Amino acid sequence: MKKVGIINVTGYIGMELARLLHRHPGVELTSITGRSAVGQKLGELLPHLADIDLVIQPELGDVELVFSALPHKTSVEAVLVALERGIKVVDVSADFRLKDAKEYEKWYEFTHPQPQLLEEAVYGLVELNRPPIASARLVANPGCYPTGALLALAPVVKEGLIEPGIIIDAKSGVSGAGRTLSLNTHFSEANENVSAYALDGHRHLPEITQELCRLNPELSFSVTFVPHLVPMSRGVLTSCYAQLKEGRIAGNEKGKREIKELYGDFYRGEPFIRVVAAPPQTKQTWGSNLCLIYPTIDVRTGRLIVISCIDNLVKGGAGQAIQNMNLMLGLPEGIALEGAAVYP
Amino acid sequence: MKKVGIINVTGYIGMELARLLHRHPGVELTSITGRSAVGQKLGELLPHLADIDLVIQPELGDVELVFSALPHKTSVEAVLVALERGIKVVDVSADFRLKDAKEYEKWYEFTHPQPQLLEEAVYGLVELNRPPIASARLVANPGCYPTGALLALAPVVKEGLIEPGIIIDAKSGVSGAGRTLSLNTHFSEANENVSAYALDGHRHLPEITQELCRLNPELSFSVTFVPHLVPMSRGVLTSCYAQLKEGRIAGNEKGKREIKELYGDFYRGEPFIRVVAAPPQTKQTWGSNLCLIYPTIDVRTGRLIVISCIDNLVKGGAGQAIQNMNLMLGLPEGIALEGAAVYP
Amino acid sequence: MKKVGIINVTGYIGMELARLLHRHPGVELTSITGRSAVGQKLGELLPHLADIDLVIQPELGDVELVFSALPHKTSVEAVLVALERGIKVVDVSADFRLKDAKEYEKWYEFTHPQPQLLEEAVYGLVELNRPPIASARLVANPGCYPTGALLALAPVVKEGLIEPGIIIDAKSGVSGAGRTLSLNTHFSEANENVSAYALDGHRHLPEITQELCRLNPELSFSVTFVPHLVPMSRGVLTSCYAQLKEGRIAGNEKGKREIKELYGDFYRGEPFIRVVAAPPQTKQTWGSNLCLIYPTIDVRTGRLIVISCIDNLVKGGAGQAIQNMNLMLGLPEGIALEGAAVYP
Amino acid sequence: MKKVGIINVTGYIGMELARLLHRHPGVELTSITGRSAVGQKLGELLPHLADIDLVIQPELGDVELVFSALPHKTSVEAVLVALERGIKVVDVSADFRLKDAKEYEKWYEFTHPQPQLLEEAVYGLVELNRPPIASARLVANPGCYPTGALLALAPVVKEGLIEPGIIIDAKSGVSGAGRTLSLNTHFSEANENVSAYALDGHRHLPEITQELCRLNPELSFSVTFVPHLVPMSRGVLTSCYAQLKEGRIAGNEKGKREIKELYGDFYRGEPFIRVVAAPPQTKQTWGSNLCLIYPTIDVRTGRLIVISCIDNLVKGGAGQAIQNMNLMLGLPEGIALEGAAVYP
Repeated sequence: MKKVGIINVTGYIGMELARLLHRHPGVELTSITGRSAVGQKLGELLPHLADIDLVIQPELGDVELVFSALPHKTSVEAVLVALERGIKVVDVSADFRLKDAKEYEKWYEFTHPQPQLLEEAVYGLVELNRPPIASARLVANPGCYPTGALLALAPVVKEGLIEPGIIIDAKSGVSGAGRTLSLNTHFSEANENVSAYALDGHRHLPEITQELCRLNPELSFSVTFVPHLVPMSRGVLTSCYAQLKEGRIAGNEKGKREIKELYGDFYRGEPFIRVVAAPPQTKQTWGSNLCLIYPTIDVRTGRLIVISCIDNLVKGGAGQAIQNMNLMLGLPEGIALEGAAVYP
Repeated sequence: MKKVGIINVTGYIGMELARLLHRHPGVELTSITGRSAVGQKLGELLPHLADIDLVIQPELGDVELVFSALPHKTSVEAVLVALERGIKVVDVSADFRLKDAKEYEKWYEFTHPQPQLLEEAVYGLVELNRPPIASARLVANPGCYPTGALLALAPVVKEGLIEPGIIIDAKSGVSGAGRTLSLNTHFSEANENVSAYALDGHRHLPEITQELCRLNPELSFSVTFVPHLVPMSRGVLTSCYAQLKEGRIAGNEKGKREIKELYGDFYRGEPFIRVVAAPPQTKQTWGSNLCLIYPTIDVRTGRLIVISCIDNLVKGGAGQAIQNMNLMLGLPEGIALEGAAVYP
Repeated sequence: MKKVGIINVTGYIGMELARLLHRHPGVELTSITGRSAVGQKLGELLPHLADIDLVIQPELGDVELVFSALPHKTSVEAVLVALERGIKVVDVSADFRLKDAKEYEKWYEFTHPQPQLLEEAVYGLVELNRPPIASARLVANPGCYPTGALLALAPVVKEGLIEPGIIIDAKSGVSGAGRTLSLNTHFSEANENVSAYALDGHRHLPEITQELCRLNPELSFSVTFVPHLVPMSRGVLTSCYAQLKEGRIAGNEKGKREIKELYGDFYRGEPFIRVVAAPPQTKQTWGSNLCLIYPTIDVRTGRLIVISCIDNLVKGGAGQAIQNMNLMLGLPEGIALEGAAVYP
Repeated sequence: MKKVGIINVTGYIGMELARLLHRHPGVELTSITGRSAVGQKLGELLPHLADIDLVIQPELGDVELVFSALPHKTSVEAVLVALERGIKVVDVSADFRLKDAKEYEKWYEFTHPQPQLLEEAVYGLVELNRPPIASARLVANPGCYPTGALLALAPVVKEGLIEPGIIIDAKSGVSGAGRTLSLNTHFSEANENVSAYALDGHRHLPEITQELCRLNPELSFSVTFVPHLVPMSRGVLTSCYAQLKEGRIAGNEKGKREIKELYGDFYRGEPFIRVVAAPPQTKQTWGSNLCLIYPTIDVRTGRLIVISCIDNLVKGGAGQAIQNMNLMLGLPEGIALEGAAVYP
């Protein structure tokens, strides 16, 4: 049993990591840290994890791999310390997702202290990046929005089937905003409410654009990304819109069938991607590591529409992080992630 | 006091009409009908309306104006009977919204029995159509999605400032699906869930396109409209995306200011439209007749984004219907509709 | 038009007062203060109140009556200042609800600085206390839980029909916990969750017991009160259980009818109390000043069960406060409070 | 691998059984039936179960044990057929929970066709009935409310520490009402709403009373049970109130400690019962087979209060049914049920 740890177990991704790792037959969660609550038993702080007999420590113990679930800006230092100790890292913060230190500075208003590590870090979207992840010592776990958007768009972007203008309209449950208190996530304000936010630019946009460009460097993408907050705890539904390139797939019923086939082929054999025949619902992924994808064509306008659904804390967070860990440790990719969605 | 009635008071729009009319100082609600529950007191059927001392009748009584809240296909006959009795009608069904009987047949799979009335009926989006509404004997109350989308887009469409390709991504509370039982609106299925639906074409699309064309017949619109169901009772948030036409408003910070001014000017003096300075939330319209509109530009792509919020049962239904009634009866437009949103 | 003000308009009760007062034809809201946000326009801070053209002031202006919506401990000083200026006060905090300064100290861990005012303050549960309220210069607006519990129990307590052991099991929406951020009211924690709290004693208990004793000083009550948090924004449903006294009302079907009649008689003519024939739902009071009461008998055990429903921010807060104001200013009691519940 | 089946997989308990059984290492789900949808693939009907490659059959195949998830009245015949084929049965309907056929007839308005089987059927509340379950061929899986109430009360009832008058005030998520459509469970009606129901007697009451009497035949219980519907999908929180018997455990702080110890001792070693130190929340059991129990004393009144939380579809349904199956098949009791709650 390989030993693993979690830095900052008390946030939503951290606690979800603990839940999933606890039943993992190939690794043992032996060390957890928190920014507060040091010395407390995990089950006292988080009663649903009372089965896990661990105390929150000030420092990470001896482990083979660690998940850093610290907020961005603070995660980078913890990652560096772990790497120097020879510990593999899956960083679930945003600190190693952007390759370009200038972009990082622009979006996070923070000069990246380890720009050389940006190059080394592997972007952990397994379905698009499996081989380098397997041999990485540092994986940057994707954000929840990029996960939903990139998996929805990858097949047509890679094949160059769409024009570069893309609209991504995403709808997220409130846990995506984390456990830190704010008026926007106060129950009485978020309940019975929908809102668009970050209309001047969300930090997940450069991450999306960067990876789209890697998929197809020839397209100069013009991406509009608008996230919305919806009154539920978990789930991200992403609606993507783009114009089909002329002369490739036709914007008609025949094209509709072809696009579905293309997606089916692209993701054939992927254990956590399901190209579905009817529009998916976030609830169908609740608690699971699945990404459901529904590609179609608006035949009146010849426009491509792709809908994807994930659980933001699993495939969009802790689940994907464990998928990365499994690869990095040479374990079967799907261990501990097989559970179906909890429905209703 | 002018007498008014409601045909089919037992649906969500019908009961909301009754609630709002009950406090209206210029009209008296004297007659209500229902498809079921004839002979029952309104307050027995709908306890929150126990103050309204009316019994559900099989036939409409003597009134000056009536609201038909029947489902489409059945409303048309009731409307005809009322008109023949010399009663003015606000039809909240879809039966008189489309001008073209062929379009109606295509989308509703039903040959319209009164195509000549389609011409006469006035589309009741007050802010865009005030004078004809005031003199109409038949007003077709807009659907909830068209209300949110058209108010969001009217200023730029009328001025011809955008390219004809428009994406409308709408998010609706569950009451928009009505009171008829279905698995999709069963609590345990709709709760903690977001889904896109009607991806092959929603019936509100031809209504949106028709009115956009009336606003600007020179543009040949290519509209993609995707509605989404979100777990709340009331509210529609509509996110509209379009490319700015070159040479008009620039896709930069200056253009952003200009676009806000343009919207402010367009809706100046409108009692129920508020062009807001920060992204609006549906909850800020809960129970009120307001439409909040936030126009902005994604300066990275030069794309226009407009967000609008309404309460689907008020501005998107019963409130707008009463606004129409007020005009048709020569009453001040805003009577009975002044209440602020109930928040939180 | 009499001028009125609100101290601390930015909490949930404060903003609900502003909403209701804005349409009140007999008073004018002229002065609002806040603990933060001084100098800001109300509509900037609270977009749903943009119709109210007022700026948040540091000090209360010239008004005839003021509502203090400050938290307990801080309200008492503001109330004193207002009274000294000759301004009538409705205090919606807990600072003047308990008559006994020692009880206050015990439950609020704070020595009451104005114990003599405790005697003068009138407990503002209108239905049980109308005459003294009308002539009071200081009214203590009841807590939301006491409002629901006392109205449910008053008829049988006054008539001495029950044994003194009473169980009050209350279920409240999250807005009852106010607008101050906390983990318990963080959306992702409160959503899809029910919990009991304050099992060692809630501060509304002494308030309930005090008023029960005033209703019937001969009974020595033994009250267990357990509040529960449920995932909705508004509403309190209170379930009360007590043993019927032998020899009075029988624990059978006949007694069931008698108890319903007794409640009907007790509350006859009350504009905001409705003794209902079927178990009520909190949603039937949403946004309204109504209290729905359903008394019945569990004929298997001869136990009395009374269910009441209110909107905690209206009848359990701002609505009741305005009802008190109306009486204190010699206005018709129901002005500005007539609106039916907003349903669904 | 022992083969098992599910009769009527399409309800909430049925689909939850399928989800949990699919990952069970000791049994294989080989046969599923449905009242509708015969011939359809499970994953088409229930997309979250697409991993399970089974078709809905008209008749049960060859299995060692079957779960009947039919509604009451229809389950009894299916159970009989299975038993005659030598198949062990866990019946999750109410058809075999009551021992007395007359009680069954009184509460279900249906003459039980197999009264002799009522005697044989073992009530499947594992923690109170382990040995007979292990050797049973027919187990009646408890209702969700009885599970929460009986586990909360068993220790004090068995020890005879309370007076026989008991109040059980339960709060349930909406999935407890099943998947059959009704106005009460229509999203827009159930959302933002709490209600009490079945005030004239709920069918789970005789089940609760019967089992309390079995635990302590000397007490003649007088139980009032009032269920409430709260706006969440899953979870039952049960609040129990009873007077402590004089001379046993004192109604003070010392008694409070003793009662916690008593509960700890009673449930020591139980894998799915956790006596907790702070009031539990339903969300802490979401998706898990745990029952959290918090016993305390209201020291002002000397009254016992016990709060319990379960997931109604797991410990209150499918999870408990699998716990029973594991015992009946000689498998370790907790297999397939070890997962922690999914939080938040």
